[in-house]
Amino acid sequence: MTVSEKSLASAIRALSMDAVQAANSGHPGMPMGMADVATVLFKDYIKFDPTQPKWADRDRFVLSAGHGSMLIYSLLHLTGYARPTIEDIANFRQLHSPCAGHPENFELAGVEATTGPLGSGLATAVGMAIAERHLNAQFGDDLVDHRTWVIAGDGCLMEGINHEAIGLAGHLNLGRLIVLWDDNKITIDGAVDLSSSEDVRARYAATGWHVVSCDGHDVADVRRAIDEALADPRPSLVACATKIGYGAPNKAGTSGVHGSALGEAEVAAAREFLGWTAEPFVIPEDVAAEWRRIGSRGGEVRAAWEGRLAGNGQKAEFERRMAGDLPADFSLDAYIDTLIANPQKVATRKASELALGAINDLLPETLGGSADLTGSNNTKTKSTGPLTRDDYSGRYVYYGIREFGMACAMNGMALHGGVIPYGGTFLVFSDYMRGGIRLAALQQQRVIHVLTHDSIGLGEDGPTHQPIEHVMSLRMIPNLDVYRPADIVETAECWELALKDATGPSVLALTRQNLPQLRTEKTENLSAKGAYRLRAAKADRKVVLIATGSEVEIAVATADLLEGQGIGADVVSMPSWAHFDAQPQAYKDDLLPHHVLRCSIEAGTTFGWDRYVGIAGLRFGIDTFGASAPAEVLYEHFGLTAAKIAPQVAAALDH
Amino acid sequence: MTVSEKSLASAIRALSMDAVQAANSGHPGMPMGMADVATVLFKDYIKFDPTQPKWADRDRFVLSAGHGSMLIYSLLHLTGYARPTIEDIANFRQLHSPCAGHPENFELAGVEATTGPLGSGLATAVGMAIAERHLNAQFGDDLVDHRTWVIAGDGCLMEGINHEAIGLAGHLNLGRLIVLWDDNKITIDGAVDLSSSEDVRARYAATGWHVVSCDGHDVADVRRAIDEALADPRPSLVACATKIGYGAPNKAGTSGVHGSALGEAEVAAAREFLGWTAEPFVIPEDVAAEWRRIGSRGGEVRAAWEGRLAGNGQKAEFERRMAGDLPADFSLDAYIDTLIANPQKVATRKASELALGAINDLLPETLGGSADLTGSNNTKTKSTGPLTRDDYSGRYVYYGIREFGMACAMNGMALHGGVIPYGGTFLVFSDYMRGGIRLAALQQQRVIHVLTHDSIGLGEDGPTHQPIEHVMSLRMIPNLDVYRPADIVETAECWELALKDATGPSVLALTRQNLPQLRTEKTENLSAKGAYRLRAAKADRKVVLIATGSEVEIAVATADLLEGQGIGADVVSMPSWAHFDAQPQAYKDDLLPHHVLRCSIEAGTTFGWDRYVGIAGLRFGIDTFGASAPAEVLYEHFGLTAAKIAPQVAAALDH
Repeated sequence: MTVSEKSLASAIRALSMDAVQAANSGHPGMPMGMADVATVLFKDYIKFDPTQPKWADRDRFVLSAGHGSMLIYSLLHLTGYARPTIEDIANFRQLHSPCAGHPENFELAGVEATTGPLGSGLATAVGMAIAERHLNAQFGDDLVDHRTWVIAGDGCLMEGINHEAIGLAGHLNLGRLIVLWDDNKITIDGAVDLSSSEDVRARYAATGWHVVSCDGHDVADVRRAIDEALADPRPSLVACATKIGYGAPNKAGTSGVHGSALGEAEVAAAREFLGWTAEPFVIPEDVAAEWRRIGSRGGEVRAAWEGRLAGNGQKAEFERRMAGDLPADFSLDAYIDTLIANPQKVATRKASELALGAINDLLPETLGGSADLTGSNNTKTKSTGPLTRDDYSGRYVYYGIREFGMACAMNGMALHGGVIPYGGTFLVFSDYMRGGIRLAALQQQRVIHVLTHDSIGLGEDGPTHQPIEHVMSLRMIPNLDVYRPADIVETAECWELALKDATGPSVLALTRQNLPQLRTEKTENLSAKGAYRLRAAKADRKVVLIATGSEVEIAVATADLLEGQGIGADVVSMPSWAHFDAQPQAYKDDLLPHHVLRCSIEAGTTFGWDRYVGIAGLRFGIDTFGASAPAEVLYEHFGLTAAKIAPQVAAALDH
Repeated sequence: MTVSEKSLASAIRALSMDAVQAANSGHPGMPMGMADVATVLFKDYIKFDPTQPKWADRDRFVLSAGHGSMLIYSLLHLTGYARPTIEDIANFRQLHSPCAGHPENFELAGVEATTGPLGSGLATAVGMAIAERHLNAQFGDDLVDHRTWVIAGDGCLMEGINHEAIGLAGHLNLGRLIVLWDDNKITIDGAVDLSSSEDVRARYAATGWHVVSCDGHDVADVRRAIDEALADPRPSLVACATKIGYGAPNKAGTSGVHGSALGEAEVAAAREFLGWTAEPFVIPEDVAAEWRRIGSRGGEVRAAWEGRLAGNGQKAEFERRMAGDLPADFSLDAYIDTLIANPQKVATRKASELALGAINDLLPETLGGSADLTGSNNTKTKSTGPLTRDDYSGRYVYYGIREFGMACAMNGMALHGGVIPYGGTFLVFSDYMRGGIRLAALQQQRVIHVLTHDSIGLGEDGPTHQPIEHVMSLRMIPNLDVYRPADIVETAECWELALKDATGPSVLALTRQNLPQLRTEKTENLSAKGAYRLRAAKADRKVVLIATGSEVEIAVATADLLEGQGIGADVVSMPSWAHFDAQPQAYKDDLLPHHVLRCSIEAGTTFGWDRYVGIAGLRFGIDTFGASAPAEVLYEHFGLTAAKIAPQVAAALDH
């Protein structure tokens, strides 16, 4: 006897309402509303194998409407993934259950992306779809031939990030990206038309998407719509008309079912309505068996793929790329040797370009780009031709004026695997994409942000463009490495560190203005320690000057002035707070001894520098907004010159 | 003899190219490309009076493509504003010139909004247009009857914020908003089609906008298009086909003219092409006279308006509102008295709702809203009915799932004047609108952000929704006041402070979870000092516990445990770092003496607390991402309970 799709969907609905009820917290409406669509999707379309959740050629499924997390937990459990178990689901939203309030990629192998911040999931999926086409172009249909599926809600579509994401997807004609829109006409505040009058279909069509609609509770109609989407070469939006909380007879179709448990009475009524007689967290054997069968259908396809991989000449390289391992012999030593041999004065953004020239030749997996500031961010090198709708093999994405879209797309590329994404914009615009940077850190993904024009040193563009609090505020995001290199050698070192850390994102804060090469001797990677003594005091040491990036040059000049007065001054360059904090205490105490006056110099907020200079120390920086003028005038104006700093240091020592 | 519009436009082009050339920095392409459109706009349409730049019923003009700042500097100078002078323009992008790289509202009275971060200007204009209709509904056509004009570029339209802004404008049918799109098909990286394939017109139409196109170099055609826009009841997008850098014969139409000086040779060629023989920064007298005439045409209209105002019964109230003054008798004392009389345990988000109940009754100028979290942010009160396309008199905006759009719209409302905007979302989503919050601070605008669910205390939603670094990272934005109140009384005090500061924005970080009322005696506004001794040690003082928000309760419990062991512990509540830093040194030393162990307790990053606890102090907080579980479980998990903190404090004292 066959099990009806309604029964399969009822299993999702029951698990969802019961888990939310047990937690007395969560969002039952979306999983119940989209259960029919999800059933069709997993039963007949998505390519996956629960026994091998990380199979490289699996389809990617992103639940962009992450609050409806019980939908994916139900699907993963029912189709036979090792986790979540039924106990995990019964412990939904409890400490140590992998079934967190929102789906987390680091909790469950079957969750492709951490979602919840609305719109970011769909934008992440765009990056996955780019990576898929790019790797397909590099490795061929035999190894890379899969789709990216998204379930999104009205919130995802209303967020600004949606515009950036679909604009990029439409422009690149990512036909293997299919978005199933839970068109339920309800948001948390009430009906969608309380806050939006948009013709969503027309907007997507205007942005180069194929659009098709269906009744989200009619499985045949859902199938028809998905088949149309598959047949169309463009990315597709499938508008699924649904009733939020479908199955809850008294509350379905209202915002009341969006983010609260149904309550015992309504759960009972839903059981009645659905004809679902099983106890909470119990799946009738026939339904369970059919779901397991669905979960097993990908096994043969995967086995065939494994066979193709085994016979493919690119097997080793493909596996290396997908594992995220750098080539065993990867090193920037030879490149850095050339720098030591021929010292030069360049902006660190230019230094980054030079480093990338070496890196992009050594690492075929880098995939660069910029949010319309290619010439300013210096992110393009000769080995990175443009990735276009006609040639996905290119290694450079013109992201357009879409910073947040770029950040999320890069997250998706990293999550997909096989590529190492990097992208540029001005540091001040990290504000536009901060949500995306944070998600890279939370998801533990190697995404590299090339953020140039990193201080008042950018000059005339003025306060809207001059970072003040940005470097510091990025330093406090957990698992984000922020590097602010001082010269061409440190820039190469920081690039090396960023590339070698496969467990989190990095920010490179780089200058517009030229900086002298301060490192002229061959050494180990000193930036790896986070901070190091660039120059030891000649006279008896009275002060330690700590600086980062473009201000290390100023610290050196300040030390010169002080030494001229017989005041010994160490200069410490500190490209990375996080790496320094991870050093042994003895190293830290040696570098920054407590009994010596310590002063920080950084052309940004002084907020936070107390950590290294103590209450008695001096903090040179800028705690107001910037101004519009040439860079050197601004450094003078804000008191960040050796001539202005040295006397204050000397005076502090006199006290 | 009449002066041709081409000559009028040539004056803009000449000033723009000459100023950029003198600075050897800036963006000549946009002002030169849009000079014809701007000429028509100022000559025949915009209502303004250079002698009274802050005339309440003037049209608002926002240059969203702020990099083209020479366009507005030229227009303001030519039409007769006191500033910029021709010397100001000759000093374009130099220190102390009001002609900064990007237009700054605090530098020039004629600049309505600070622009430069792309897209934010247009989104700000949406707020201005909302404020205009709202005040029109409250004060009538006689006093409020003006339009909002925007010049935007491709960058403005490609940014995600554009989707949020036009979605809101279309939904509210802001027919008095007209956006002139500089459709020049060029971005910094090259042709627009390098990164976008969008049908912009169709997208705007899908979002409820009227769309019309014209040749941006044919003044009659521009006029026709603007007339059509004026006739249509919807917000209008006027697509102006232009050639970027028009007038520069060899470089026009290329990205090379976007962000660099033309060079001496091309400037000379442009003079030849335009037939412009005047020296740099010299305007021929006939052209200057015609521009001054244009500038004078609004005088009569303004005089007539002044007459209507003089006879209007609402004159005093209207002037008070537009001046941004609170009613002379405004006070929350009576409300706070009721709190003292009847202590209660409520979440500070609920406390905020209760305070707003009192505030919204006392202040007709508040204009609230939420980004689709009304019931969670507790931002709606009984006196704030919805503002809709059919009734602009409402005092509550359903912003939809558009955080950044909300932030920028609120900036525009504040810049327009006459209203005090406040809006809610979850604190973690401050990341989505950080660019907007920063622009409020830079523009010195009273915008109040109600940011609830301010820590792991929100519980089960997990790490995507739990702020860790957010409160601290907001504290470092210059001119932004961040408040984290500890109970219902502090919440009222912080609201009062936020309302009374007309020179900058505020953030109220509020809890989801209930907090006991710690303040039960009538006092002055203690939050005004930023920090104060909530409880003095009973035993000999050995430690000062500093806490904010929901952790003040924990500090009190910790003090109880310590006092039980004979360890005297002060408890300091610190709702505002900025206010505390502004206190006299003696007050600060008394509250946080250096010789006593100091410990901070805050359910967020410990980064930055060194400032108040010193190197020897203890910092209790969370430096990783959060987790999904009930709030009390998480506080236990992350060690933020009195039972876990007290022993560590005692141990530190034993050393």
